[in-house]
Amino acid sequence: MNSISLTLTTKEDKGVLDEITDVLSNHGINISYVHLYVKDDVGTLNLELDNVNQLDELIDDLKSKDFILDIEIHGSLNDIFGKRILIFGGGAQVSQVAVGAITEADRHNIRGERISVDTIPLVGEKNIAEAVDAVNRLPRVNALVLAGSLMGGSITETVRKLKEKHKELIVITLNMPGSVTTEADLIVTDPIQVGVMAVMAVASTAVFDIKRLKGNNKF
Amino acid sequence: MNSISLTLTTKEDKGVLDEITDVLSNHGINISYVHLYVKDDVGTLNLELDNVNQLDELIDDLKSKDFILDIEIHGSLNDIFGKRILIFGGGAQVSQVAVGAITEADRHNIRGERISVDTIPLVGEKNIAEAVDAVNRLPRVNALVLAGSLMGGSITETVRKLKEKHKELIVITLNMPGSVTTEADLIVTDPIQVGVMAVMAVASTAVFDIKRLKGNNKF
Repeated sequence: MNSISLTLTTKEDKGVLDEITDVLSNHGINISYVHLYVKDDVGTLNLELDNVNQLDELIDDLKSKDFILDIEIHGSLNDIFGKRILIFGGGAQVSQVAVGAITEADRHNIRGERISVDTIPLVGEKNIAEAVDAVNRLPRVNALVLAGSLMGGSITETVRKLKEKHKELIVITLNMPGSVTTEADLIVTDPIQVGVMAVMAVASTAVFDIKRLKGNNKF
Repeated sequence: MNSISLTLTTKEDKGVLDEITDVLSNHGINISYVHLYVKDDVGTLNLELDNVNQLDELIDDLKSKDFILDIEIHGSLNDIFGKRILIFGGGAQVSQVAVGAITEADRHNIRGERISVDTIPLVGEKNIAEAVDAVNRLPRVNALVLAGSLMGGSITETVRKLKEKHKELIVITLNMPGSVTTEADLIVTDPIQVGVMAVMAVASTAVFDIKRLKGNNKF
């Protein structure tokens, strides 16, 4: 067993978070995501954990702490929602890119892949640049598709910085005026096809390898 | 100023997380989301914070800790990606529901709303039930749309439990055979319309109030 998700219900007290992270690090476990909230002095902590090799012993060690009220074990969000393709843009195109991506993801997910297609319709240079900047703060993102008819300026600059921080991220754009295409790994004219190709680029059930396109990435 | 996002770069050391949560709780701040990872003894902590009233003092207090290497201030993910509509289902329908939702969200987002439309194409009772169970562990979810042609059994049971835990969640289904429609707040036959109505149900820029439909929720 490697990745799991735990939901811990705890008494809200000083040092609780620290004791939990101690137990996890003693087991050599990586925390990839934490979502916590506190209500009426009871804390709920959703933890995504990688490298969990001895689940029973981990649960025993957590149960030995008197501030732990309840433990639920779930499949990891990585396993359930899988790789994540983000689509940002506005108007007619963004929903058509989503059709291509969702239809193609359906075909791969049937064969055992897990690919999510997450979209926000947005217009305006500032709004889109802010969303691009936030990609690095979202979990599980494999590819970003920019689905607009004109993107440049601070969007291009933000994509460049994002790619420096997130070296594995694949950036795909529609073929459009504006400088953003200079930062794209792949430029595609047809909105349905750009969605399909984004899924092919991240699916391990596909033979398409975007790294082999260098110098010939415009379709 | 109310909701913000901070990215803290820290030395990785025992007690760091606890000292940070201490500073935040001294300011009366709620942590709604934490995403952390550690690499080469440097920790990166993305924090979504609510109820931040004195940002300058908060930053000063954090900077006074010698384990803090860097602080970046961002807009909150709540403000950037906003309310979240999830669409689960497979085949022809899931992408058409997404078209309705994305197109309608585009129209609301242009007027200042922020609504995201997040999709995973999935088939199989067990897979969909597992994804429904995981909804409670995702941030910012306002509505769940089940876009299939037959859903019941453990999916229905999981939807029922999810609604007990997450009382504000709106559950919308396509009109289909299978017991899942018994748990729906709204049942819609047309896939484009179900997407549109999901957005109308969560948008504060819309006049549609799903609570007023009780007893007449099938279209």
